[in-house]
Amino acid sequence: MVRMSGQSDSGNSGGGGSRTHRDTAQVDMPMAPPQRTGPVGARGSTPVPPKPALTGPVPLPADGRSDASPMVRTVERHLDEILGAVPQPDPIELAVLDAQGLLCAEDVVSSRALPAFDQAALEGYAARAEDVATASVRRPVELAVVGESVAGVDVPAAIGPGLALKVSAGAMLPAGADVVVPAVWTDRGAARVAVQAGPPAGSYVRRTGDDVAPGDPAVQVGTPIGPAQISLLAAVGRERVLVRPRPRVVVLSAGTELVDVSATPAPGQVVDVNSYALAAAARDAGADAYRSGILPADPRRLAEVLESQLLRSDLVLISGTVASGGFDVVQEALAQLGEMRFRQVAMHPGPAQGFGQLGRDDIPVICVPGEPVAALVSFEVFVRPAIRLMLGKRQLFRRTVQAISGQQLLSPLGYRQYLHGTVMRHPDGGYVVEPVGEATDALLARMARANCLIVIDEDVTEVAAGGLVTVMPLLLGG
Amino acid sequence: MVRMSGQSDSGNSGGGGSRTHRDTAQVDMPMAPPQRTGPVGARGSTPVPPKPALTGPVPLPADGRSDASPMVRTVERHLDEILGAVPQPDPIELAVLDAQGLLCAEDVVSSRALPAFDQAALEGYAARAEDVATASVRRPVELAVVGESVAGVDVPAAIGPGLALKVSAGAMLPAGADVVVPAVWTDRGAARVAVQAGPPAGSYVRRTGDDVAPGDPAVQVGTPIGPAQISLLAAVGRERVLVRPRPRVVVLSAGTELVDVSATPAPGQVVDVNSYALAAAARDAGADAYRSGILPADPRRLAEVLESQLLRSDLVLISGTVASGGFDVVQEALAQLGEMRFRQVAMHPGPAQGFGQLGRDDIPVICVPGEPVAALVSFEVFVRPAIRLMLGKRQLFRRTVQAISGQQLLSPLGYRQYLHGTVMRHPDGGYVVEPVGEATDALLARMARANCLIVIDEDVTEVAAGGLVTVMPLLLGG
Repeated sequence: MVRMSGQSDSGNSGGGGSRTHRDTAQVDMPMAPPQRTGPVGARGSTPVPPKPALTGPVPLPADGRSDASPMVRTVERHLDEILGAVPQPDPIELAVLDAQGLLCAEDVVSSRALPAFDQAALEGYAARAEDVATASVRRPVELAVVGESVAGVDVPAAIGPGLALKVSAGAMLPAGADVVVPAVWTDRGAARVAVQAGPPAGSYVRRTGDDVAPGDPAVQVGTPIGPAQISLLAAVGRERVLVRPRPRVVVLSAGTELVDVSATPAPGQVVDVNSYALAAAARDAGADAYRSGILPADPRRLAEVLESQLLRSDLVLISGTVASGGFDVVQEALAQLGEMRFRQVAMHPGPAQGFGQLGRDDIPVICVPGEPVAALVSFEVFVRPAIRLMLGKRQLFRRTVQAISGQQLLSPLGYRQYLHGTVMRHPDGGYVVEPVGEATDALLARMARANCLIVIDEDVTEVAAGGLVTVMPLLLGG
Repeated sequence: MVRMSGQSDSGNSGGGGSRTHRDTAQVDMPMAPPQRTGPVGARGSTPVPPKPALTGPVPLPADGRSDASPMVRTVERHLDEILGAVPQPDPIELAVLDAQGLLCAEDVVSSRALPAFDQAALEGYAARAEDVATASVRRPVELAVVGESVAGVDVPAAIGPGLALKVSAGAMLPAGADVVVPAVWTDRGAARVAVQAGPPAGSYVRRTGDDVAPGDPAVQVGTPIGPAQISLLAAVGRERVLVRPRPRVVVLSAGTELVDVSATPAPGQVVDVNSYALAAAARDAGADAYRSGILPADPRRLAEVLESQLLRSDLVLISGTVASGGFDVVQEALAQLGEMRFRQVAMHPGPAQGFGQLGRDDIPVICVPGEPVAALVSFEVFVRPAIRLMLGKRQLFRRTVQAISGQQLLSPLGYRQYLHGTVMRHPDGGYVVEPVGEATDALLARMARANCLIVIDEDVTEVAAGGLVTVMPLLLGG
């Protein structure tokens, strides 16, 4: 019987995996501290004979030969290595509209007061509160209208007792006025106005600096810049702002079987889908993604491509480098640029993973499997959090929810299994999830029909129908 | 006492507003049918004297003069008018990577089988299942290795009894083989291989067309295109795909008081923040947003700008057109291009709203208030759903959650009030929300600190501290 020798340093024992994933069906709150999806490196389980599997993850034989079977490590350890090594690109200054979606990298202090002057909050008549205090519909108070103050026009005249100035919303208030009577509470008179209600002093008036005083912080370091922040930045006169930039991620595909999407594949050849899919995923995660395509087979040209891409990248993502046993031209070329560590990670799909920091600038290079489903799952698990960390995001991981599994799910001990599924809201509350297609054989078309990943922890071998399982919705905003 | 005459056709009676908003703290599921946030046009309440308000929405006097007070309509009716009139731009063909985030507008049918040939699912040895059925670690089965099949290389030779072919993942399977023995279950021999476990026939083999058969649908009309769909589109050989395009939204600001952000405002002048903030919001909603800036004051140039922007837009968004009473040059210019309907909408902030379809092509034009907080709230309420409808999205509205209000909230009867707030997860479950700053006076800096809008329905005048209130989280992915 084959036995498993991998170091299955999985989480501690337990049920359906609820404890090792945040229940993050919550609002993404800016004040939330950074959090990791699972526990890190708690070692517990021992090698156990695997069940026969038709197409699932392949357990390793118990022969202990480290030359034949590379060390198996947990998902969490591989993720830790990557997250511990990715740099945070230096802040850059961008035009405020280009800063959208990024994190502010400076404490923006206002040199102005907002509002810059006492102004009417709405259309009406600037007046003295004491003059209109007794006004009612039955006993309106009449005021003489001394003129009109329109937003943007010159400083208006002062008013005295019994006088009013017609004002538009945002118009500067005349000296002497301490209230704006809404136009709808008056007869809208031109020379004289009948006021039908007297609001208390200060009503419908915006005072200088009510919003922001000079020297007040406007947008602080670490704030995500959205429309409201752009509004405030513009208001304090900022055309540009220092932000955490989008990391430049270059996406490459390796594999002698690959042809570009424009070609008709010959027998044995396969279309390069990963450079497209991973570039899309990297962009979705917030990166500036460049699809560089299929790596050349010629060693000299290959080395040139890798070197030039390292120079223009903050992160390089390569699929398909972990090729079959024996000499691999891409692995060889990468080894010339620094130490790439290829490892078996205790996950399915996608155990063959690699990471290194290459070239003069120690650019992080993440290698994921060439099989397209494994490539995108690996992206979710390792690359998306790395990109979000480079962006400075506090929430590195997708939120997960606990869902009732509609059917029995099997998973090999010691492996974290990711299954594509469809999660639905249950009429009685909570969620129900079904895997898409056969349990362990998630292929491309099935992946495209899924709306979530089902995550089955290393120490769970079976989720009963009706049992709870961790689900990571893959939101597209459809 | 002032009385309210507006037609407050609000929702039917009820408590904290929970019924009029979807509880959408749910996974965004592609199968969800289109749904609206609230009920449409149910008329119920009668005019009631308002409470005095310091800075809140201004009730209308009960004098019934339609010339002085334009008709007040509900948020839902104004939204209905807009959503009923915005067109859906014609589908366009884009490169697959540019299609990301958009909805597919064609039924993509595969002309290929995926996989295109029987292939090894992982690295190992292609063999005959019957040859290795008895293999175990103690009694390995030895096979003669007749060669190696590498992914992408020519069609491999057939194998017969007692023979094996070394295969890499993705490599074409030789004729005669019906199983792949994982390399880790063998001694990885070159000339002869010792097999330590015999998986059942079909194991670790991907059969031609297992994933997609020729003629199978790949990506269907209405599917949001994300990395998984891009992966599948590339796999079936599609470089381009028909999609629902991003609507082109031109953003303009009107107001005599406005100066560009690069200028230092003179007394009475205000920086144009809305063209920035609304362009950012439109982009965030999925539009191709063009910030056109401040409209010129000169009537002839103004007309030219409006006409030329209508020609390049699917939607025009103008802030600040609903100026103070009296002649307004922008309203005048808009009236030359078609019927613009300016109305008071029973909401706070932002009652002054406008909508029309202008120019030769009946381009929808949405006018929102010039006050920056009211402008962004109006965007959320009216413009974001319109943009999402133009994109073909099924989910037009932001999800809402019910939250416990940390303090008492007051709201005038007949008005739907939107307050900026901070929503937090409660340690015991559920959500707690606090308004940012003073209850009814949400200014720019406060808005920038908020992470949600608190929505208080028309028929609710008070939410007690501890009561439930509807909250619309404004997610930025921070």
